[in-house]
Amino acid sequence: MTNMKVLISKKTGNYYYYNGVGEYHCKEGFLTEEQLHSGENLVKNSKDREFLIFESNKHDQFQKIKRGPQIITEKDLGYIMARSGIDKTSSIVEAGGGSGGATTFFGRICDKVHTYEIREDHCKIIQSNIDKFGLDNVTLTHGDLAENIESMDKNSLDLLFLDMPEPNMVLEKNIDAVKSGRYVICYLPNVSQMIEVTKLIAEKQNLYVEEITEVQTRHWRVWERVSRPEFRSEQDFTAFLMFLRKL
Amino acid sequence: MTNMKVLISKKTGNYYYYNGVGEYHCKEGFLTEEQLHSGENLVKNSKDREFLIFESNKHDQFQKIKRGPQIITEKDLGYIMARSGIDKTSSIVEAGGGSGGATTFFGRICDKVHTYEIREDHCKIIQSNIDKFGLDNVTLTHGDLAENIESMDKNSLDLLFLDMPEPNMVLEKNIDAVKSGRYVICYLPNVSQMIEVTKLIAEKQNLYVEEITEVQTRHWRVWERVSRPEFRSEQDFTAFLMFLRKL
Amino acid sequence: MTNMKVLISKKTGNYYYYNGVGEYHCKEGFLTEEQLHSGENLVKNSKDREFLIFESNKHDQFQKIKRGPQIITEKDLGYIMARSGIDKTSSIVEAGGGSGGATTFFGRICDKVHTYEIREDHCKIIQSNIDKFGLDNVTLTHGDLAENIESMDKNSLDLLFLDMPEPNMVLEKNIDAVKSGRYVICYLPNVSQMIEVTKLIAEKQNLYVEEITEVQTRHWRVWERVSRPEFRSEQDFTAFLMFLRKL
Amino acid sequence: MTNMKVLISKKTGNYYYYNGVGEYHCKEGFLTEEQLHSGENLVKNSKDREFLIFESNKHDQFQKIKRGPQIITEKDLGYIMARSGIDKTSSIVEAGGGSGGATTFFGRICDKVHTYEIREDHCKIIQSNIDKFGLDNVTLTHGDLAENIESMDKNSLDLLFLDMPEPNMVLEKNIDAVKSGRYVICYLPNVSQMIEVTKLIAEKQNLYVEEITEVQTRHWRVWERVSRPEFRSEQDFTAFLMFLRKL
Repeated sequence: MTNMKVLISKKTGNYYYYNGVGEYHCKEGFLTEEQLHSGENLVKNSKDREFLIFESNKHDQFQKIKRGPQIITEKDLGYIMARSGIDKTSSIVEAGGGSGGATTFFGRICDKVHTYEIREDHCKIIQSNIDKFGLDNVTLTHGDLAENIESMDKNSLDLLFLDMPEPNMVLEKNIDAVKSGRYVICYLPNVSQMIEVTKLIAEKQNLYVEEITEVQTRHWRVWERVSRPEFRSEQDFTAFLMFLRKL
Repeated sequence: MTNMKVLISKKTGNYYYYNGVGEYHCKEGFLTEEQLHSGENLVKNSKDREFLIFESNKHDQFQKIKRGPQIITEKDLGYIMARSGIDKTSSIVEAGGGSGGATTFFGRICDKVHTYEIREDHCKIIQSNIDKFGLDNVTLTHGDLAENIESMDKNSLDLLFLDMPEPNMVLEKNIDAVKSGRYVICYLPNVSQMIEVTKLIAEKQNLYVEEITEVQTRHWRVWERVSRPEFRSEQDFTAFLMFLRKL
Repeated sequence: MTNMKVLISKKTGNYYYYNGVGEYHCKEGFLTEEQLHSGENLVKNSKDREFLIFESNKHDQFQKIKRGPQIITEKDLGYIMARSGIDKTSSIVEAGGGSGGATTFFGRICDKVHTYEIREDHCKIIQSNIDKFGLDNVTLTHGDLAENIESMDKNSLDLLFLDMPEPNMVLEKNIDAVKSGRYVICYLPNVSQMIEVTKLIAEKQNLYVEEITEVQTRHWRVWERVSRPEFRSEQDFTAFLMFLRKL
Repeated sequence: MTNMKVLISKKTGNYYYYNGVGEYHCKEGFLTEEQLHSGENLVKNSKDREFLIFESNKHDQFQKIKRGPQIITEKDLGYIMARSGIDKTSSIVEAGGGSGGATTFFGRICDKVHTYEIREDHCKIIQSNIDKFGLDNVTLTHGDLAENIESMDKNSLDLLFLDMPEPNMVLEKNIDAVKSGRYVICYLPNVSQMIEVTKLIAEKQNLYVEEITEVQTRHWRVWERVSRPEFRSEQDFTAFLMFLRKL
């Protein structure tokens, strides 16, 4: 994956991802292996169209990770990280590993990450993505977090991240593994799910609903005489983030 | 700063920050030192109001860092980090250190951070905040990045972050210090500033305007019969983020 | 009300509303009656501050209507009108008259408006506002719409507008007064209220949830070197609009 | 157009517009003329799919007007109308008639509307749409507003609406036709265009930039266990609205 290059057609603005081996063919024509490895940043392809050639970065690699279930977006992951105050020193547990988008993101930033995923097919995708990013600080468990949370060390976690339809299955357990003052974050697409969580929290004494946030990104176009938001967005909504603070 | 506790009044929802020493007085009454250090999470103050007591986390500490110029918000820092793909392995240079909000954030996440700030008074605030977070991987230079950028090692930076009114002062220089495929990010409040940057980029061959994004957060209130966005937001706009990709 | 003038301080940008009689005093100083009626658009007040003088329009008059309960905003009223396709030929019934904001708005646009309001104190405010706008096509009934809806003429209404916490009290009745293809619009601040309406509709055969919309306005500042959204908005959220279409 | 019916497939949620004559065929099957005129609201088509049948309203007719250039959206027209305070008593001039979307909207609401359009092909579309809505209070002039504005009666207009790329062509003229306290509204997609207008206004003494607004709509989905914003929006941005107030 680290040899991947990003190709952008100047005419269409389309992105293409080149895996580093051989020629590259797409509907706009082809580039030779020699061109792709020439070190030139701007080349013309077989149909005389100009292509920009970039080395890939970890954003590109995140976009291209192997997917089963939908991955969490960078806008949400960035806010989770910044708002919860986690960093290189943090230990995280997450459940609902999905495709491993959040797993590899946290793995690249934090000290230790432990992921729980109940579906075996998803576990294979997650492990494959952990390997692609070469992360040796991530543990993957094929199993149900709700059955494991109470046996974790008390005050050991800086963040518990729950990407699952019914987080109450975990929240109704003893969650003393989370340090005082740190967060349990629920990632939930529906308001009705948040209402369910709030009802449970109201009866528990050790969690406080500190913030519920939706993160939105808006893309702009500025060039020549154009200076406005894009007319169409890729996506308008992903999910709500509930920040539950541990007492 | 690490002994700081966060106090939340259940009646008003107000936040108070206790520095860990002595009693705590506020307009809602006072709490005794014994109460504050009892390990109890819910105590009644002198006026019989209930207060929640939390250990502080790095989000709280970020909110309370010493300030001169306004600090960048967590919503923007989170997106910058996630979208640019930086992590524990990254080397960053930033200019317009301001109060050191971005400086300490990047310092807590990345391998190496070098900050340039032209005002001596701001440098003092930044250094004080670096010290508070105990960061030994951050270098602070009192000086102008535009005069230093060309002498940096080629292909050494994973991110160049510019929080300054006229980033063209830097962009018109040779910026080969930034690795191919990585980003220069400009943080700009005005569309007219983005137009200026775009004009310069159009004449240069080594930068590509990959994305211009505004990050918005919307806070919700969900409890009992309420389930809606907050009627009023703290802040509606901070700045636009320009992601310029190095060829 | 029609003699009202609008005064804007050039220094502060503050708005003042002058009722047309005598001098005008505010914390920024005073203007003489002679100045106010001179026909000049730009005058200096007693403290040498420049004031712009405008004739009032109906937007100003809407802002200044007598208020008990909060009035519906222009952003919501505008969308209700445009999206539901009502115009000079339309007959409307609304309930939850409140302060008469929607009442006078619809009265100024449509052919006939009939308002129901259960609280007598609100009825007085509404009548006073109807009178101020001089509307003779508006009928106000002190009473409960739920008890009156079934006795209205079949196929007589172009819009039924419900601004009440529990619109199901009306929706569970026979609402054949609404013409086929036209709308019942519910104005609801909470998602939980929309869930309640949706549950009722699912069991009825004569309404279809065609659209649920939130209308947002964002204000900008453009002058000299500034070109950005306002840093702070007055209000971030009012309510959701549910467009239920009559079969 | 008034015989048009709206058909909604319960399976797909797709909308179809039936012109009132004969059978109706679409890719989901067909409905017989007898079914379409039976007065039933819910019928099964040739492929056993259920269709809802609605009488059309003026929103539907607005969606289906004949189009050349893009029409202004209902969200923008609604806000223009509500915020500017125009109603049944108002006289309006608009320029850049386009397809006649704004023309017919204002015509249905206001007392008198006069539209200027420089392109003859657009004039034909506008006239066709005026005729479809049966509006006799709308005047269409094939010509340039900038050449006509100064000969209009002083203080005769409640609103001057400019939907053109360079509104300064009109604004640099004497616009005393607009009543004191009323608005000139510019509809502009680019911030750079607003900057141009602002520069001109700064040199003129009879206009004040009272408000610049962008109107956004966000659609929701609420049914069964779903209660969230739509994942994708049809359109994210149309244009900015500049409210210039006449002194």
